[in-house]
Amino acid sequence: MKEIIPVILSGGAGTRLWPLSRSKRPKQMLDLIGEGSMLGMTAERVADPALFAAPWVVAGTSQAETIEDAVPSLDRLILEPAARNTAPAIALAALAAARDDLLLILPSDQLIGDAAGFRETVARAAPFAREGWIVTFGMKPDRAETGYGYIERGPELGDGVHQAVRFVEKPDAATAGRYFGGGRHDWNGGIFLLSAGTYLDALEAHAPDIAGAARGAMAAARNEGRRTYPDPAAFARSPSISIDYAVMEKAEKVAVAPVSVGWSDVGSWEALMEVSPRDADGNALAGDVLALGARGCLIRSEGPLVAAIGVEDLIVVATGDAVLIVPKAQSQRVKDVVEALKDKGRGEWT
Amino acid sequence: MKEIIPVILSGGAGTRLWPLSRSKRPKQMLDLIGEGSMLGMTAERVADPALFAAPWVVAGTSQAETIEDAVPSLDRLILEPAARNTAPAIALAALAAARDDLLLILPSDQLIGDAAGFRETVARAAPFAREGWIVTFGMKPDRAETGYGYIERGPELGDGVHQAVRFVEKPDAATAGRYFGGGRHDWNGGIFLLSAGTYLDALEAHAPDIAGAARGAMAAARNEGRRTYPDPAAFARSPSISIDYAVMEKAEKVAVAPVSVGWSDVGSWEALMEVSPRDADGNALAGDVLALGARGCLIRSEGPLVAAIGVEDLIVVATGDAVLIVPKAQSQRVKDVVEALKDKGRGEWT
Repeated sequence: MKEIIPVILSGGAGTRLWPLSRSKRPKQMLDLIGEGSMLGMTAERVADPALFAAPWVVAGTSQAETIEDAVPSLDRLILEPAARNTAPAIALAALAAARDDLLLILPSDQLIGDAAGFRETVARAAPFAREGWIVTFGMKPDRAETGYGYIERGPELGDGVHQAVRFVEKPDAATAGRYFGGGRHDWNGGIFLLSAGTYLDALEAHAPDIAGAARGAMAAARNEGRRTYPDPAAFARSPSISIDYAVMEKAEKVAVAPVSVGWSDVGSWEALMEVSPRDADGNALAGDVLALGARGCLIRSEGPLVAAIGVEDLIVVATGDAVLIVPKAQSQRVKDVVEALKDKGRGEWT
Repeated sequence: MKEIIPVILSGGAGTRLWPLSRSKRPKQMLDLIGEGSMLGMTAERVADPALFAAPWVVAGTSQAETIEDAVPSLDRLILEPAARNTAPAIALAALAAARDDLLLILPSDQLIGDAAGFRETVARAAPFAREGWIVTFGMKPDRAETGYGYIERGPELGDGVHQAVRFVEKPDAATAGRYFGGGRHDWNGGIFLLSAGTYLDALEAHAPDIAGAARGAMAAARNEGRRTYPDPAAFARSPSISIDYAVMEKAEKVAVAPVSVGWSDVGSWEALMEVSPRDADGNALAGDVLALGARGCLIRSEGPLVAAIGVEDLIVVATGDAVLIVPKAQSQRVKDVVEALKDKGRGEWT
């Protein structure tokens, strides 16, 4: 069987984990659970020579060296001259591959607890991708989350892979509750298995301006060792659109492989807490922390001693130049801080 | 009328305001409300040439230069070779003074909102001190505080000065409630007006070992400009006892002048909050702080940016090497942190 090329998208900024994540040190570069960077863990998750080729990464040019350090097994690094969201990024990889190569598109900043289970599902999905299906991986919901898109499952195509009936953007709370109760909707985790040819054809049909810009950028690309520099002027002509909008919601042959493999996008400090080991008081502590009577807290320091007394359900994150304090249930509001810092022209978000 | 010599006792460590206060930067050296150090404010409070002579300070030798910087008007600096609590410290000052000098003994780390009212009370109390009374100043309680000693008021001697019936150590909650309701008990703020001779006689009668040690230390003292270095060997023989234990609870002629002058010993972060200006959300913010939806918080930074979102009734204090987070109502527990740091041999309390 022909190998699958993992294509890791490392374009995100990840301000939601401020003050640890910064524009110059995005979430995928952080060691959040003590097992290396998110990007490194993503690459290791697909380090199975029986199933996968060595990984490719698509990222911004400023990240090149950091990524080469984080992913020693890297086979190809496609450096986007500008950020244009996922649809154009994947197009660059698809154009660099052979038409019948299978690409496993992976965000660089997610955790999957059961890597073996995930690989097994990818292997089951591969025959469908070879037949021209764009296979998504539907993460089994454990709550009525409003922060994710959902995929509605249709009839089974075979081997646990279903036709996808509908993609739904982030729903309101009532809709999310219905989805969670109904059992036919899974979270869209942004992981896709598809052949390069299938993707390029879909792009040509549904987003020809992206296809054209990416083709121009790769035709004039410059290669240096394993690095590929697409042409900036050509790539700049691409609109900035996600694969979900550009392709998934419009393509004909879309499948979903439901999985239950301990997936988390670690999209907030609260989400990190859910996947972190806790002590007897329910605290997830990391770094130089002294907790006295604290309960249910995530407290993390990369610099100063943090002494927390008698606090509950609180997130505290300290770095050398900034300290965040927010109740666990409000940890999504971290983006408000980052916006305020940008407005003030402060350096603590860069 | 002969002047009164303010004698400021600057011996305390003040670990209760950690991480701002450290053993090498005690509470009296902190600028807590933006009006200079507590010690400097204490000296300014008695800078009234009609009533007071230039101030004296009794402190540990390591603080000499810091104190001379903080109190430019300093007349005499008595440098204790060892910490022996307040009774011996006051004895050194009393021996340096003439027997009929009046001494106003002042802790160096308190706030008084109404300095003029305080000076007026001192002036009213002076005639009683000249007649051999040890005059205490009874701070009018505004709550059933268990953290202070109390003075029971007896019959009025005249001019708002009462005989003191009894000194009571920190009471339990029920007793404190009775005192607060009864209206005959005031807080012992540790401020005393007495003549040097009265004090030395009382010490001779009730604590002769302190009197002897202090006399020996001052007889062999070395003077350098305005600095006095009592003899270490002699002073080391003194027991370590407070003026309350050694004298006040035993002396005959003890008076109390009740005052209501906005007194605070700033004995905790919560106490500091009570005397600090607040914004519309009830927050007392100082330093580089970004508060979003915070209410009733004291947030203070001497270093990093502190971003607090949606927290209530919380104390947050950040310095370059340490961050404290504690609910306002538990701010007395800061001492537990300092104890833990001492136990661990950590440098963040020094």
